[in-house]
Amino acid sequence: MAFTLDTTYAGATLAQIPALAKEAAAAHNALHAGTGAGKDFLGWLDLPTEYDKEEYARIQSAAEKIRAQSSVLVVIGIGGSYLGARAAIEFVRGQEHNRDEDFEVYFAGNSLSSAAVSRLRDYCADRDFSVNVISKSGTTTECAVVFRVFKELLEKKYGKAGAAERIYATTEYNEKKSKLYALSLAEGYALFNVPDPVGGRYSVLTAVGLLPIAAAGVDTNALLAGAAAAQSAYQSDDIAQNDTLLYAALRNLYYREDKRIEILSVMEPDFALLGEWFKQLFGESEGKQGKGLFPASTVFTMDLHSMGQYIQEGERTLFETFLTVKESPAEVRLENAAGDPDGLNFLAGKNLAFLNEQALQGTRIAHADGGVPGLLVTIDKADAWHLGYLFYFFEKACAVSGYMLGVNPFNQPGVEAYKNNMFALLGKPGYEKERAELYARLNKQD
Amino acid sequence: MAFTLDTTYAGATLAQIPALAKEAAAAHNALHAGTGAGKDFLGWLDLPTEYDKEEYARIQSAAEKIRAQSSVLVVIGIGGSYLGARAAIEFVRGQEHNRDEDFEVYFAGNSLSSAAVSRLRDYCADRDFSVNVISKSGTTTECAVVFRVFKELLEKKYGKAGAAERIYATTEYNEKKSKLYALSLAEGYALFNVPDPVGGRYSVLTAVGLLPIAAAGVDTNALLAGAAAAQSAYQSDDIAQNDTLLYAALRNLYYREDKRIEILSVMEPDFALLGEWFKQLFGESEGKQGKGLFPASTVFTMDLHSMGQYIQEGERTLFETFLTVKESPAEVRLENAAGDPDGLNFLAGKNLAFLNEQALQGTRIAHADGGVPGLLVTIDKADAWHLGYLFYFFEKACAVSGYMLGVNPFNQPGVEAYKNNMFALLGKPGYEKERAELYARLNKQD
Repeated sequence: MAFTLDTTYAGATLAQIPALAKEAAAAHNALHAGTGAGKDFLGWLDLPTEYDKEEYARIQSAAEKIRAQSSVLVVIGIGGSYLGARAAIEFVRGQEHNRDEDFEVYFAGNSLSSAAVSRLRDYCADRDFSVNVISKSGTTTECAVVFRVFKELLEKKYGKAGAAERIYATTEYNEKKSKLYALSLAEGYALFNVPDPVGGRYSVLTAVGLLPIAAAGVDTNALLAGAAAAQSAYQSDDIAQNDTLLYAALRNLYYREDKRIEILSVMEPDFALLGEWFKQLFGESEGKQGKGLFPASTVFTMDLHSMGQYIQEGERTLFETFLTVKESPAEVRLENAAGDPDGLNFLAGKNLAFLNEQALQGTRIAHADGGVPGLLVTIDKADAWHLGYLFYFFEKACAVSGYMLGVNPFNQPGVEAYKNNMFALLGKPGYEKERAELYARLNKQD
Repeated sequence: MAFTLDTTYAGATLAQIPALAKEAAAAHNALHAGTGAGKDFLGWLDLPTEYDKEEYARIQSAAEKIRAQSSVLVVIGIGGSYLGARAAIEFVRGQEHNRDEDFEVYFAGNSLSSAAVSRLRDYCADRDFSVNVISKSGTTTECAVVFRVFKELLEKKYGKAGAAERIYATTEYNEKKSKLYALSLAEGYALFNVPDPVGGRYSVLTAVGLLPIAAAGVDTNALLAGAAAAQSAYQSDDIAQNDTLLYAALRNLYYREDKRIEILSVMEPDFALLGEWFKQLFGESEGKQGKGLFPASTVFTMDLHSMGQYIQEGERTLFETFLTVKESPAEVRLENAAGDPDGLNFLAGKNLAFLNEQALQGTRIAHADGGVPGLLVTIDKADAWHLGYLFYFFEKACAVSGYMLGVNPFNQPGVEAYKNNMFALLGKPGYEKERAELYARLNKQD
């Protein structure tokens, strides 16, 4: 098995699964029939097989061109427009993927930090670099603002035509909706599409994720093949045959039993960004109408020495989903030490991976004994294929889980609130009324 | 003012502060009188002024020696033995502090990942490197195991005597308690002390934090001066005069009103690791006896596009502590663009820092309107002085808050649970009984 979901420590809750079989099947079938909330955003469901093959070939060529023309790729995007790609690159190539490499990938446009932007701008000034700007709407402020900065630098370095050869735009192919699309057509940037029926947090298998992932040297064929394997594996509406339903049902059962926080606990530091992707996927899909599990993530054993105490003995409103990998990519074997100065000779001859595995098993039992039920996802290898599988598994489980919770897992109405206030405070045309109201609250003069 | 705590959006809860003044004063006075729980671990209280000056001078010399002898420093520690130092280096020098630098600092021994350890080992094989191994007890498994790996590499590269010149050990000066202390004496490693009355998560201003921070080129004089300023500022037991009491009281009031999660929302990516340090400090100090706020952290505006939806509209059991910096270290000014292709010309001439500030103000209001009360900590500059101030502010507030919650904020009994299971599964001598019990539960043969 390439992927398993182990419920050994799921606790007494597990016994209620059969009672939820119908509800889970109904959610699953609503998803496939397109009869549920947010039914216009189901394009991700068959993406692993029904993607645009012509564009896919263009993505591969663009990735090659980027690596040939530049030593740095700056990926400009925020939220779903960077988390999947960054998670994939770190998962497959490691957190330190830029260390000691001729080709580097950096993520920008995911903050308004002048410290971060100016440092990267300075770094790029001396190097050949390309930009992949990613924004479905083309108007996300962080992304658009930072794109202006790097576009200006590119045009200064290479001239307008030279810059256009180094700018790759990923946006919705819609002149009315996306200003970035219109700009790209006008300037002659290479263009890639964000299909309308795919929302940001479900977009990693579109050009949004695939172009930076391919440019970073990760095998996107394998990524899609893994996702396709998951797509095929999770077609049944029978909870006994479909782990996305089992996981969705367990999450909802814990929630109904007053668990309020799910922690994704990964056993490799390279999976940390996947934890961030997971938090967006579930938090943004379910956190609405005053409902939803609060998603958190930890990296073990690292965070057993920071959050471990809370998990073991704090408020008993947690459950945990562990994620581990069976096969270790490298061997680090402990040698015998003369005199056993640290008392670790009992581990001589053991591989570090064996220690990590015992730490995982010991932690599962300790946390379950402490009142924190735990699920365990195990994959065989930390490679692109298994990551594709994981992406699809979590996406489908999230959609089903959202339906069982009674929310629309495909919208994010709450994200507008801060944006509207920010636009008003920034003096954006069209926000004059909001600005006046805010200034009145803040007792400011306009 | 170098530091302010703004309670404008703290909500109706604020009105109850006067009623908690006595309780907060009692917690504060118990801390200073040494009459509360965990009174043997109060060494951090006067560390900013009462530190060991002779050792401090040795730390500076060691930092210089490391930079002269090596291009890479590997810091081996987990939990409180790395989070403070890493937070400080990223806060002052930036998340990408190793990028394009002649001297690099990496953190290891904070996981059992063979992928991470083998990559760093390979990287160090070709370079001159030094090791700072940090473990109060000297027997923390992750740390000890990874130290074996790098010690072996050092001895292979430089011989036993050469390796000893490149190993810097930070541990408790106690032969009975710390095997690392005994080993360091025997091998002639440079030694630095973790004072007995300072627990791991309160240890950043001891050699635990100071040596790697100084080696990374951060001004430790300024760090200590900032902490000393906070120490001096927060001496009063009057809640109206002491923001550590105000913050501690507000946290406890929110908790009593059924808030369950505190989110530290920082406005700079470079503060992300400070968020992790914060999570350990509060989570490990308060998460016990089935109690305690669950600590989370987000980086804005980045995570407004992932966790923002949940914060705005999910379960209403959150409150938020924002952390921002007034002075921007660099200017990134937006230019006017011909034809205004992205509709952002209304921002022409503005600095990115102005946008970040409006995003913060807009978010504070949006979240408060959504039912999430918010506190705001503002510092003048993201430098060592202000970080020292922040470290001390949060440490003292955490101790007072823990006392108000009715727990011992200086122990971490729950951290042993996974360790005991792990030792048993690993076959550690002395854990035979636990091993037999676990194997019986797991239906395994020994």
